[in-house]
Amino acid sequence: MNAEIITIGTELLLGEIIDTNAAHIARQLRTVGLNLYYKTTVGDNEARCAAVIRQALARAEVVITTGGLGPTVDDVTREAVAQATDRPLELRPALLDQIASRFERWGSTMSENNRRQAYVPRDAIALENPVGTAPSFIVETAQGVVISLPGVPHEMKYLLEQAVLPYLRQKFDLHAVIQTRVLRTAGMGESRIDAALGDLLTGSNPTIGLAAHPGQTDVRITAKAESKAEADRLIAPLEVQVRERLGDAVYGTGKETVEAVLLQHLSASGWAMAVAESGTGGLLTQRLSSAPGAERLFRGGFVANDPPALAQAMGINADGISEEELEDLARRLATRLVAQTETEPSERRLGLVVLTFPHPSAEQATSAGGTVIALGTPTGLALHHLGFGGHAAHIARWASTQALEITRRWALSSDAEIPRLRSE
Amino acid sequence: MNAEIITIGTELLLGEIIDTNAAHIARQLRTVGLNLYYKTTVGDNEARCAAVIRQALARAEVVITTGGLGPTVDDVTREAVAQATDRPLELRPALLDQIASRFERWGSTMSENNRRQAYVPRDAIALENPVGTAPSFIVETAQGVVISLPGVPHEMKYLLEQAVLPYLRQKFDLHAVIQTRVLRTAGMGESRIDAALGDLLTGSNPTIGLAAHPGQTDVRITAKAESKAEADRLIAPLEVQVRERLGDAVYGTGKETVEAVLLQHLSASGWAMAVAESGTGGLLTQRLSSAPGAERLFRGGFVANDPPALAQAMGINADGISEEELEDLARRLATRLVAQTETEPSERRLGLVVLTFPHPSAEQATSAGGTVIALGTPTGLALHHLGFGGHAAHIARWASTQALEITRRWALSSDAEIPRLRSE
Repeated sequence: MNAEIITIGTELLLGEIIDTNAAHIARQLRTVGLNLYYKTTVGDNEARCAAVIRQALARAEVVITTGGLGPTVDDVTREAVAQATDRPLELRPALLDQIASRFERWGSTMSENNRRQAYVPRDAIALENPVGTAPSFIVETAQGVVISLPGVPHEMKYLLEQAVLPYLRQKFDLHAVIQTRVLRTAGMGESRIDAALGDLLTGSNPTIGLAAHPGQTDVRITAKAESKAEADRLIAPLEVQVRERLGDAVYGTGKETVEAVLLQHLSASGWAMAVAESGTGGLLTQRLSSAPGAERLFRGGFVANDPPALAQAMGINADGISEEELEDLARRLATRLVAQTETEPSERRLGLVVLTFPHPSAEQATSAGGTVIALGTPTGLALHHLGFGGHAAHIARWASTQALEITRRWALSSDAEIPRLRSE
Repeated sequence: MNAEIITIGTELLLGEIIDTNAAHIARQLRTVGLNLYYKTTVGDNEARCAAVIRQALARAEVVITTGGLGPTVDDVTREAVAQATDRPLELRPALLDQIASRFERWGSTMSENNRRQAYVPRDAIALENPVGTAPSFIVETAQGVVISLPGVPHEMKYLLEQAVLPYLRQKFDLHAVIQTRVLRTAGMGESRIDAALGDLLTGSNPTIGLAAHPGQTDVRITAKAESKAEADRLIAPLEVQVRERLGDAVYGTGKETVEAVLLQHLSASGWAMAVAESGTGGLLTQRLSSAPGAERLFRGGFVANDPPALAQAMGINADGISEEELEDLARRLATRLVAQTETEPSERRLGLVVLTFPHPSAEQATSAGGTVIALGTPTGLALHHLGFGGHAAHIARWASTQALEITRRWALSSDAEIPRLRSE
């Protein structure tokens, strides 16, 4: 079974907005086992839209359009679908009532244009849209079905999940399900993970794929099966094997971030934390302050562009400091951080310091720099010195991830004792 | 003259990556006056790619493909273009030499797969790619031209600008040019700008369009003409009128940011600055620390999730503070900031404090909150209290833009005196 996606809107052709809807729909179609071979974007032109829909219907059993369902004359999807499926538009009084009552609730009057949205191609299945104003619909033809969704991403996503996927499963008796489990890892590097997983990477169902990001690698296990439960059963034993081989490097699953997982650990063991960073543009602070639980556990961040300015802001003089003295400075800043953010003596506080060197320059394609990371508590201190071989543009993400990951591992293994000082 | 874009890659159909190349190419094609009616995405399948290219050539004079030029067997663009334009592939010794010498420089050996990249369709114009490894090419046919670019965004952008657009201008004698001038404004609001520009918004060439962002509005002036110089001549008088009506609200043009413009002003007048912020996730700090000139002028940022934690980190006790007392706290923090980041007594230092309230919650669709902004120097202090009616997700961008804009206006008007205290 094949599907095809058509995104409709002149603003997409002008390059004024980037089409994120198509990628979302593509991922969702995979979950019900539909293949996708073509994706087309066309402007707000009825004839061209209709031609593209006709062509898609000749190649695929399921055609999904997004966009062009608004109230203005620019919105041509209704007319284009009617034309491509050889039927007229018809007024649906129930849709008109919904639209009218919505305007009443808003205390405004419905224009003639808004009435246009109550028309759908003859015999179409109308989809109620409780999260927006554009009614959507499905037209069933001898060749296949055309499903028209709004272009507003959150409306499109809602209707796709709530109405379209269940419809497709039932209509086409779709049992093939593609299920993906993502294991998130940090601190291990893609090549080491590749070597550790070795033979597991050659299987055909489930398959394992790796995706590397600065300081982080995702392991994606994907299975195809007759049902979600069966796909999960295929994935489970492989997940166990992957976890056995990668150990603590797996910090979470799905969309979990290192910072969120770290704050969960800290919350469970009663720690709060503060950070100081230079050369990372405040990324460590930003990641921690926007993670769930930050309002209770994140005590603040000090950010500067270089170590002397950071030290200055924290009341320590570090003018003319050399790279060799960075470790010592990191230690002093971590100690200061723990003291400076004390709110009550009984609270257990971590201070995390990240200094990158040299200040990454946009001119350099790669940086021979690295980072010094100090993790302090009221009673101890750990120090890491890591080199970075990647692109200078990625050093902030890499260094902040390393710092979070070091802290996560400490929190994992810690019985509240700081591990002994070590350099890497 | 029509153009068509084809993006090639199974990962695009799987929804694993979002296609940003097509939007960039679309914008660039507008600058040479080419129309774009269709944009197609197809996977790494030779027959399907070839079919899509054939169809595009039947509809448009210029077909641009991106992706599928790598060294692996998955990369089918070379074969697909050859098939669609009815010609064989031929080895180009010059390309092979370039590839071989690149491997030599890297100290590694060229694989059989890499040789594939030295093949292009017969009679194709090979485009040298100094920024990557994938050779690109142009095939001229009786129907039109097929231009194949790499999928790696920075390589695609480089070749498009340096080789493809000049080629298209010359080949098709393209004189129609669409030129856009973007004036960036802050602190004035879309509806006030709309009212101020009034009659100017109804012109047909040039046209004026507005795009609103949190705390900022872009005014885009677009002209179509026979040459860039003529388009610029059409735009210039309109830009003068817009600037006259909007005054200081226009802070810059093109891709200029408020933070970059602010740092230019400060640099010119000899000021450095530091910031403290709560409830904005460190965005103000991040924006300033990554702006050009930050390494000299940005003295650091203090970031926390709420005002008491921020105060604590800066050595001020503010437990149990009420919303009414926020202004007083902002004043104290600004004063502390100026003192704390002093490096040498002769330096002129600004301290900018942003406190948002209430802490925006992801649950709330809209926030009735706002921000208190304090701007301090060694000799003065200004205070602003602004309400925010937008979506809670936008408060950080809005508040940081307001703070930067207030500081920019101060720097603009300032003869180094702080304006008198005022509330809005």
